[in-house]
Amino acid sequence: MNEHDAPATGGRRDFLRRLAMASAAAATTAASFDLSAATPAKRSEVRHWDAATDVLIVGSGAAGIAAAIEARRAGADALVIEKFHIPGGSSSLSGGVCYCGGGTALQKALGFDDSVEAMHDYMTAASGLHASPDKIQLYCENSVAHFDWLVANGVHYAQKFSNEKEISIPDGSLYFSGSERVWPYRDTIKPAPRGHVPPSPHLIGGRDLMAALTASALKLGATLKLKVSAERLIVESDGSISGAIVEEGGKRLNIRARRGVVLAAGGFIHNRPMLERFAPELASCSAPWGRAGDLGIGIQMGMAAGGAVLRMNQGFVVIPIYPPESIVKGIIVNDKGQRFVPEDGYYGLLGHEITFHQNGRAWLIADKDIAFGWDDFRLPVAATADSIDALETKLKMPPGALTQTVDYYNRHAKDGQDPLLHKVDHFNAPLAAAPFTAYDLSVGNVFAPVHTFGGLQTNTDAQVINAFGEVIPGLYAAGRTSAGIPVGPYIGSGVSVGDASYFGRRGGRHAALRTA
Amino acid sequence: MNEHDAPATGGRRDFLRRLAMASAAAATTAASFDLSAATPAKRSEVRHWDAATDVLIVGSGAAGIAAAIEARRAGADALVIEKFHIPGGSSSLSGGVCYCGGGTALQKALGFDDSVEAMHDYMTAASGLHASPDKIQLYCENSVAHFDWLVANGVHYAQKFSNEKEISIPDGSLYFSGSERVWPYRDTIKPAPRGHVPPSPHLIGGRDLMAALTASALKLGATLKLKVSAERLIVESDGSISGAIVEEGGKRLNIRARRGVVLAAGGFIHNRPMLERFAPELASCSAPWGRAGDLGIGIQMGMAAGGAVLRMNQGFVVIPIYPPESIVKGIIVNDKGQRFVPEDGYYGLLGHEITFHQNGRAWLIADKDIAFGWDDFRLPVAATADSIDALETKLKMPPGALTQTVDYYNRHAKDGQDPLLHKVDHFNAPLAAAPFTAYDLSVGNVFAPVHTFGGLQTNTDAQVINAFGEVIPGLYAAGRTSAGIPVGPYIGSGVSVGDASYFGRRGGRHAALRTA
Repeated sequence: MNEHDAPATGGRRDFLRRLAMASAAAATTAASFDLSAATPAKRSEVRHWDAATDVLIVGSGAAGIAAAIEARRAGADALVIEKFHIPGGSSSLSGGVCYCGGGTALQKALGFDDSVEAMHDYMTAASGLHASPDKIQLYCENSVAHFDWLVANGVHYAQKFSNEKEISIPDGSLYFSGSERVWPYRDTIKPAPRGHVPPSPHLIGGRDLMAALTASALKLGATLKLKVSAERLIVESDGSISGAIVEEGGKRLNIRARRGVVLAAGGFIHNRPMLERFAPELASCSAPWGRAGDLGIGIQMGMAAGGAVLRMNQGFVVIPIYPPESIVKGIIVNDKGQRFVPEDGYYGLLGHEITFHQNGRAWLIADKDIAFGWDDFRLPVAATADSIDALETKLKMPPGALTQTVDYYNRHAKDGQDPLLHKVDHFNAPLAAAPFTAYDLSVGNVFAPVHTFGGLQTNTDAQVINAFGEVIPGLYAAGRTSAGIPVGPYIGSGVSVGDASYFGRRGGRHAALRTA
Repeated sequence: MNEHDAPATGGRRDFLRRLAMASAAAATTAASFDLSAATPAKRSEVRHWDAATDVLIVGSGAAGIAAAIEARRAGADALVIEKFHIPGGSSSLSGGVCYCGGGTALQKALGFDDSVEAMHDYMTAASGLHASPDKIQLYCENSVAHFDWLVANGVHYAQKFSNEKEISIPDGSLYFSGSERVWPYRDTIKPAPRGHVPPSPHLIGGRDLMAALTASALKLGATLKLKVSAERLIVESDGSISGAIVEEGGKRLNIRARRGVVLAAGGFIHNRPMLERFAPELASCSAPWGRAGDLGIGIQMGMAAGGAVLRMNQGFVVIPIYPPESIVKGIIVNDKGQRFVPEDGYYGLLGHEITFHQNGRAWLIADKDIAFGWDDFRLPVAATADSIDALETKLKMPPGALTQTVDYYNRHAKDGQDPLLHKVDHFNAPLAAAPFTAYDLSVGNVFAPVHTFGGLQTNTDAQVINAFGEVIPGLYAAGRTSAGIPVGPYIGSGVSVGDASYFGRRGGRHAALRTA
């Protein structure tokens, strides 16, 4: 596990570098989109079993490991197979935030009031038209217990709140990880910090989260096999799933799963043809973000067995302008020099708006005071100039358009106001100190980590649903292999890992208790 | 055929009323989304055939009738079944425009130069990231011949060009039906008028188009049966499609199709649960536009037989601000008082931008000169005021935002310029004459006709493709039952009917020549 041993030396810089390395590694392994390799094998064609378990779990990220823990707790054998030589999946590459609320132990310990209703209302409103009501409701109702479960399984949290938009202190474990304090949500829904994250000096809480959960799963008796890839499901004559054909060291093995198979193999951000077919907007983003295994094989195996898919065009695009959050004092404009998103919005909201609603193009305009000390972040500089007028000329924006936008912004910002987009008061200050800088936030130019949201349609027990609305017996999916709570626009950091771990648990338990 | 006999008395007003009536009728027939009713029947369970044909065609719109014509021309029997008591499908409700180019007989007769390359480049650029390269290329290469085919099958065109954005003269047959003369396309791709439409005083060319094509099909010996609904496909043990179970007068009949089944049953705009699941943005639009049969049954039958689907979230939203095109002198703004789309863009482009990129909300701002004579169109009036300042207050826009937008626009419009969005010169004139009116273009308030683009994945011979990339033998789809050339943003009027008729032809011919 060489990555676990890598020196973590640069805070956010290190975090970004790790993502870039992961992306570069993955780019070399992209496969073409062809479901035929995932065609299920008929049970009648499987002449022998090479191994057997109760619950076979494909993938060792948050979804898969949570499934393994619950399967074991319900008394079933659990075998987790992982294609990569390192366990943890994309969850271990992530910040490790879990979006929990409704009054968790940590929220209470740190003096924050929250309610299931407020959490539910925020998640529903922030998800827009594509929200999954059933899953959001269940997730919110059980969020306090889910946080306790994380703790019970060894995940460590510090009793310290971080008040910035990204965890900016080495021992912080609770923060506002979404747009809860951003207009329009703050006006109608009581905000609470719901980003729960293992304390980490380097924004690499995912490593600690997955180390703890994996250790717990192993302690409970789950089996974890690395460098084993799932290839095809095995289907009985009645349509139920009874195992999978896997590859290990060049050999095909038939693994029997007496109770069920849980597909928890991530999304498809590294499968270029699949991405171009289903989510071309995401294909334009600079930094595919996920372990090399995010090739869509879980989704393909499920589709090949008849599973329905949803929201295949959607995804999570990060435009990581913060931390430090002081940069939020700048303004974000489109190619017409117009503002279009509250700059204090969650960076997944910024990414969504830029990618899907502005043709992937935007710039962050900062003055000397804001830009000071910013070279650490290496946002590409599109232009600098001593006046806004000169800047807009360099950016080839319509003459006078950016000037007018800045004039309007400054006129109100001097009073701490933002009538256009309601950026919160303390981030509003006139852009007045030359020189002015335009950072390029265009998704093909800026470092824009991106992963997919679309996947197999599942019910609240993580059972895969076919196009007829029927359950495929014995087949489960969770995390980004499924179409879960994360939708565009994305709610906040920790929703993907939260959804993966929570519904992974439900799938593992349901499979374990399933009568074959 | 009572609708065909209805008096056409009010030009555009009548056109809109017809759409509204069609929508109201359809709203009462919406079915729930449940593929189980469309489960294919196994051939082994079909004990007898009630009838037989070579090519069975589901739906009598442009796609279905074109398929019937080509099947007959290739020597095959063709049976067209239509659920409704009137033939013609949504094509007959449409304007009847067919998007043709590359130098058609009508283009040449009217003195317009066009090339396959220019047509191809415009269609590709205007389709954005979701363009279908193979289909666009084939469509453009064969567009001259396809227009000749329409004429040969009895569709009448007048040799008269209409230079407005919508056919505004009773005997015009050629016009610019898309955004060919709109920025940015006009700067790099030579524009040509490609909207070919039977002359009609009432924008009801679809009636004449379908009357001609249907007569041709019948003359060629195709059989057309009304009030017969397809319900389920019949599948052989080798996976090929050999017929369908249909309903006629309350009885189920097994229809054998020796060569193939062509699904040409329209989209799913009238299936509310299906719309909410796949295309919630479209569900917000006020006027579902299509015959009552657009319930997605063709798509469902194809999906149930294993057909893959694409672009289920996309659709065509019309914000019909013109004709007359003089209204384009107004400006369209979002809820922040900003302009975001060239107002002279195709009304399908306006609809796309408002629906998908502005949360469905927008207003058209006009002054007294522009608004004069406008009551015919009954765009809902959101507010009127004697100053822009007062108007923006009434609209609850950020203070000064609309004022600033109008100031900027006026400053350049007085010179016929629009540096922000490049609206073409002659539509630029300062908004100066009080009173000012804001028309509500929000998709839930304005009359916003909408239909779906998503459907079955097909190859260029209209064969349905399964999730494995394989052809389903004997199964074809065309028109809005398929995922064709129309994508969001929509290219221009006539692309949907053009795609439907062209690929309907290819499907009918391919099926007819297929060896069973």
